[in-house]
Order: sequence, then C-alpha cells, then structure tokens
Amino acid sequence: MMQKTTAGWLRIAGLGPGAEALVTPEVSAVLADATDVVGYVPYVERVPPRPGLTRHGSDNREEIRRAEQALQMAANGRRVVVVSSGDPGVFAMAAAVFEALEAGEPAWRSLDIQVLPGISAMLAASARLGAPLGHDFCCINLSDNLKPWALIEKRLRLAAEADFAMALYNPRSKARREGFGRALQVLREACGRERLIVFARAVSTPEEAVRVTTLGEAGAEMADMRTLVMVGSSQTRRLERDGQPWVYTPRSVSGSAL
Amino acid sequence: MMQKTTAGWLRIAGLGPGAEALVTPEVSAVLADATDVVGYVPYVERVPPRPGLTRHGSDNREEIRRAEQALQMAANGRRVVVVSSGDPGVFAMAAAVFEALEAGEPAWRSLDIQVLPGISAMLAASARLGAPLGHDFCCINLSDNLKPWALIEKRLRLAAEADFAMALYNPRSKARREGFGRALQVLREACGRERLIVFARAVSTPEEAVRVTTLGEAGAEMADMRTLVMVGSSQTRRLERDGQPWVYTPRSVSGSAL
Repeated sequence: MMQKTTAGWLRIAGLGPGAEALVTPEVSAVLADATDVVGYVPYVERVPPRPGLTRHGSDNREEIRRAEQALQMAANGRRVVVVSSGDPGVFAMAAAVFEALEAGEPAWRSLDIQVLPGISAMLAASARLGAPLGHDFCCINLSDNLKPWALIEKRLRLAAEADFAMALYNPRSKARREGFGRALQVLREACGRERLIVFARAVSTPEEAVRVTTLGEAGAEMADMRTLVMVGSSQTRRLERDGQPWVYTPRSVSGSAL
Repeated sequence: MMQKTTAGWLRIAGLGPGAEALVTPEVSAVLADATDVVGYVPYVERVPPRPGLTRHGSDNREEIRRAEQALQMAANGRRVVVVSSGDPGVFAMAAAVFEALEAGEPAWRSLDIQVLPGISAMLAASARLGAPLGHDFCCINLSDNLKPWALIEKRLRLAAEADFAMALYNPRSKARREGFGRALQVLREACGRERLIVFARAVSTPEEAVRVTTLGEAGAEMADMRTLVMVGSSQTRRLERDGQPWVYTPRSVSGSAL
C-alpha cells in the first residue's frame, strides 16, 4: 500500500563547520527523522548511515540539479534534508533551492520547506581567533564561477573604503588558482601591507590550522578550498599570548578615524 | 580548604537567537560545568538556575565592567561563562572581553579563554526568510553609541554602491529614536524605493514577527531593539507562497549587472 504523499517535507540544514558539538539540536532532530539526505559528497558523509535513510551524494558543481532532486523527492512524500557545511544561507544550498523552486514545478510552492541555520565557517573562525568580526564587517565569496571577477575587485575596494573587516569565502580551488593572488594585491593597495589577515583552515576539525599574518607577508599559497580568510579593518588588533595570538576588532571607533 | 585556583577558565558563549534547539551542544556542555554565568540580565536568565551556579546579571551598557568581573573571577579559579544572545563575536561580548583583557591585569593573558560560537540573529533571520544573504553581504551595527553617526551613513552608502545585501543590527532603541529613520532615508536614496527590506523580530522565540516590504513602504516604527533588519541587494527576489513570502538572493550575478 502506498503511503500518503502529503507527509513529505524539505529541510535545508547547516551542519556547522565540522565538529559534532557545533551541530544544533534542531538539525540533529531532522536528520534523525529524515528518509533522504542530499548534498555534496563530503557533507552527506558527515551524516552516519542508518536503516531507513538514503544518502544522495553529488558533485560540487551540481547545486541546481541537487535542489530539483530534493524538491521532487519531498513532493513525492519523502522527508528530505539538504545538507550544507556551515550555514545553508551563506554561499551554500539555500539560495540554490529557492532558485530551483522559483523556476520549477508550480506544485513545489506549496511544499513544507524550512531552512535550519548552522554555525557558519566565519563564526567558527572568528571565535577561534577571538573577535575579528566584532565591529562592522562584510562577507564576500571570492569564487568567480557565478559572477564576474571585476565585481569581486570592486567589492573588495569598496569594503576597504568602508573600513569593514572582511570574511572571504572560497579563496582558492584547484580550478581557480589565480584569483586569490589578485585579491591580495587589491587588498594590499587598498589597506596597506601592515593590515592583519588571518587564514583559518578547517576550524573545529582534526585538520584545523590557523595563521595570523599581514597583507605584506601573505601569499596565495596560504589558502586552499578549506580556508576561510579574514582581513581586519584599520582598527583590528593583535593581542599576544602563549601560542596563537588573539585577533579582535574593538567595538568603538572614534570620530578621528573617519 | 581553598581549592587550587589554576582550574579557572573563561568561556564567551553564544546562546543563539532564543530557541533552546538552536543552542549548540558545545555551549550547553560548558553551561553545565560552569560555576558562574555573567551577562546582560535577559540573557543570564536564559540559563536555568541550579545548585553550584551563580548568575551575575548586569545592565546593557556595562560591557567592560562585566568583562573585567568575568576575567577576575576566572583568575580566582572560577569556571565562568560570559553569555551573549546570538553569536558572541557579532556586536556582542567577545570584543568587550578582549578590550578588557588588553587593558587589564597582565596575569589575565595566561588564562584559559575560549570563544564558543552561536547562531547569530542574522543567520536565524535569514533562515526564516529563505536565503536573503545567499550572495555577498555586509553586517552593520546601526547604534551610534560607540561610533560617529557619519561613519554609519558612509558605510550604508558604500554598501549600497557595492550592491551588498545588508544585515542591520540594533536599528532602534528607546534611547536612539531618530537614527533609523535617517538610515532608511540614506538607503532609499542609494537603493531606490522598490528595494526589498525585511524586519525580523525575535526570530525563534514566541514573540517572533517577520515583515517583508520595500524601502518605499518601510517606516522607522517597524523596528525596535529586538529587530534584525535586512536590506536586499539589487538581485534579491521575493517569491510568493501561502502566507509569508520567501526572500532570497540568487548565487549568480551576470556581467551586465556591473
């Protein structure tokens, strides 16, 4: 006998940066109740197999097809979780699902859909360093797969002019080897060689590695596809201690800094 | 007999936006092990009382004194958690603690200190709406308690020029009634009256209220101190469904949008 199909739902969930202790109880609960988990292979593999759960891993570049597959399964009565690393709303699967929803079957609009937030890479990296994003900041995806490189440079220059701290996602991948070096050059011109920069790789995982340096000392090879880069504002400070220094941006800016 | 004082530690923890299901297991674990919880009164009250735990609630404007108190207690061997709503690194207590650490007792530098991330108000609000922060964005504190108003206006204009989506914290309080109306005027001039704006109040709590409108229709009275405001980029879309519409920013920008 067929189950009633109206019980299907779709959740777009953030698994956080890697550590199990950073997955919210809300996300753990939907994963325990799901029939299907959909996402990029390494993220799907973070959900342990169990009877009754089908894991659908797909390649990095297949976001829209993956989103359509998830919407169709939910329409067929499945309980589907699309998983992202970090937060699903920050350069991850939530936008892709809504793009697919808008372009897709009209019936999908009445599906039971929720987005469940997660600890984003920038919040995890910021916590590990201290408080580099403790004042106004911006968040820029350095990949030019889906936007022109000129727009990335324009945003970096305007962010520097606004004196934002910056969280920079996807600095570099095997397919994009050149862009990050150019981004560093733009930042050196706009912010000077003494400005603080942080490379935070795979925070909260066994592969975690953090490096604090300056734009003058930074090189493109310090980042890979698992690195979140943070550039300080003019106010960001380095505070020495044993081992890794703290990095924080004070809450106050005086009038003379304008 | 006195306990050895070297066992003290300080954790600066994010409680998330309000719902218990959005508190990370990492934060729950340190709260269960703490001797002292320190913070703004309504946040401290989110930690249930239990034997062996002292809750130190203080007023909103006392961040530095509160940070010094927490550091001193940890130096005295207490297990201290400084709590913030949302994430401690986003316009919350982490920066205040590092300011106090830098200015304070040299011995504090060798304390066992960690920052534990939380689901920030912007991630919770973004999830509730869909994916308004799905492309490049910035995050600005609209309070001019600790920076000149002119800097806020400058950042809003540059953020509009960069075509960032914007998450705007602390739009309005009883003591700051005028600024948000001026911010809306700046945004209308820079982004036009049709630009999407979202008011997300107390997301994940029983008082949650979300409103999607345009800059032309927005009024300062739509925000209070519990409201996170989000302004779309030029690409941000509204997707109708039964009830509250979805709001999302697509991942792609074409070359012609430059």
